[in-house]
Amino acid sequence: MRARIFCLTIALVVAGSVIGAQASDPLASWNDSAAKKAILTFVEKTTDQGSPDFLPVPERIAVFDNDGTLWSEQPMYFQLFFALDRVNALAPQHPEWKSEEPFASLLKGNMEAALAGGQEAILEIIMASHAGMTTTTFEKIVSDWIATARHPKTGKLYTEMVYQPMLELLVFLRANGFKTFIVSGGGIEFMRPWTEAVYGIPPEQVVGSSIQTKFEMRDDGPVLVRLPKLNFIDDKEGKPVGINLHIGRRPVAAFGNSDGDLQMLHWVTAGEGPRLGLLVHHTDAEREWAYDRKSHIGKLDKALDEGLSRGWAVVNMKDDWNVIYPFEIK
Amino acid sequence: MRARIFCLTIALVVAGSVIGAQASDPLASWNDSAAKKAILTFVEKTTDQGSPDFLPVPERIAVFDNDGTLWSEQPMYFQLFFALDRVNALAPQHPEWKSEEPFASLLKGNMEAALAGGQEAILEIIMASHAGMTTTTFEKIVSDWIATARHPKTGKLYTEMVYQPMLELLVFLRANGFKTFIVSGGGIEFMRPWTEAVYGIPPEQVVGSSIQTKFEMRDDGPVLVRLPKLNFIDDKEGKPVGINLHIGRRPVAAFGNSDGDLQMLHWVTAGEGPRLGLLVHHTDAEREWAYDRKSHIGKLDKALDEGLSRGWAVVNMKDDWNVIYPFEIK
Repeated sequence: MRARIFCLTIALVVAGSVIGAQASDPLASWNDSAAKKAILTFVEKTTDQGSPDFLPVPERIAVFDNDGTLWSEQPMYFQLFFALDRVNALAPQHPEWKSEEPFASLLKGNMEAALAGGQEAILEIIMASHAGMTTTTFEKIVSDWIATARHPKTGKLYTEMVYQPMLELLVFLRANGFKTFIVSGGGIEFMRPWTEAVYGIPPEQVVGSSIQTKFEMRDDGPVLVRLPKLNFIDDKEGKPVGINLHIGRRPVAAFGNSDGDLQMLHWVTAGEGPRLGLLVHHTDAEREWAYDRKSHIGKLDKALDEGLSRGWAVVNMKDDWNVIYPFEIK
Repeated sequence: MRARIFCLTIALVVAGSVIGAQASDPLASWNDSAAKKAILTFVEKTTDQGSPDFLPVPERIAVFDNDGTLWSEQPMYFQLFFALDRVNALAPQHPEWKSEEPFASLLKGNMEAALAGGQEAILEIIMASHAGMTTTTFEKIVSDWIATARHPKTGKLYTEMVYQPMLELLVFLRANGFKTFIVSGGGIEFMRPWTEAVYGIPPEQVVGSSIQTKFEMRDDGPVLVRLPKLNFIDDKEGKPVGINLHIGRRPVAAFGNSDGDLQMLHWVTAGEGPRLGLLVHHTDAEREWAYDRKSHIGKLDKALDEGLSRGWAVVNMKDDWNVIYPFEIK
């Protein structure tokens, strides 16, 4: 009986989404545009049993980049703000950081100098700030930070700087039987503590970059210790690899915003049958940020050319989204 | 409307399982035993909203070892039969194998000598037989093999040698809101092509050992190439690491059969709240195989002691299961 109530609850919740979607526009924050039409057409044809493009539910896998696709990424990836706060908190235990780059610049608040070392500098910062504790402790550190830290420009919580149109898209896809995954260059364990509450995406559907962990039996029980060793970078060529390792089948829809998503979009859209590739183009300097080919963060150059030539949908944020952040409509 | 029909279908399918479960014993192949009672009690208390042990649906994660837990593993892991068949098929292209171990022994059919090199010999065989092609090609090779290859003793397809009681357990758990995962030392891409059809477990819920893959853009499109380099061994201390990487939260129930599952059972049962750990003890030399502390394959020694002292459920296959394989009841 309890199990039956649980089943009914599922049915009602799912049906509720659908009824809501029928009563009003499920993508209300999207203006009429080519991108919106591409999404609606794709969902229509893949869920219509009479369509030659119909997809059985298990094949309905959709993957989303996170930084710049589901939430903002300027003036730098939000995870770097987290790393900066961690480095500041840990600095008293590391007097050597005062003279060692990238930490010296970081502690002076000079992010540009700190990141001048590129990928290697970022990795050093990540290892110093993300390793050396158990997975349980790290989860708590992230949860505490994400609940309180605020963006330097907007003063909002970082989780308030997610895109309302993409939240609607996630709900719309799931209401139509799609399973939604994050496939991000960001840290897998940096995202998991909050993606379920913010995006409705559970930890097991989050793919990201990672450091190594090690199992240890301690007197008070087993732990997983986070090591300062790189495990996997889920970016560029790494995204199809991460998709294959974690999901194990090729998704049918991919959403990204930068050259880091290019290979993921190639991999997903090259599959047989109906496919949807979509790029978010940051064009709104007033409500968000405007950047593309020359940006250090979220560079969109080659992927934009490829997208235009291959018929991927391209969202012009300024024109296509009538709301950017959820707090605008509250 | 289509979406609504889809939702109703879900509801009916789920409700159907439950009604079936109420009308008859959902674990009909399990004799009344301490293990069966442990399972029923655990599911009852974690799904009863009035129980102090109630678990919200997203927390209902159950992990299953594969070899020896969901299907047989004697006289050797079934994946080694696959590797042997692959080595034989590839031998004409590798004349050097005639004099190189472990291949020389393998080609003579002397498995014992071939595996005398232990883990390293197995890895060499796996690399030679599982790498060097695209993921798409490998999936087809596995699918073709699993559909036709037969076990040397029973003459059955390997997928017919799954345990009926465990199939019932998987269905029962899922009907009660649990998400079921495989966490196996076997190859992740060796399992994925058939786990959905055989166990109802989709590729994205399969965790296993893996070799590295590499993304390549070819003239006819993107591919992932399987490299002869180890990526991850999902066994012993690796199982909690694999669980953390792929699932990202601690499961509440774990099912295994050997010392390779010990750390997974520790990790799962050490969590707060209600937990279920279960070991399958192979005690039936007539209907299956009887082996434990001294077996080279599926050794159950330390885990058995730990299980008995920590109160994990232990299945005595001979006494507790009235059916082993599904073909017995067809």
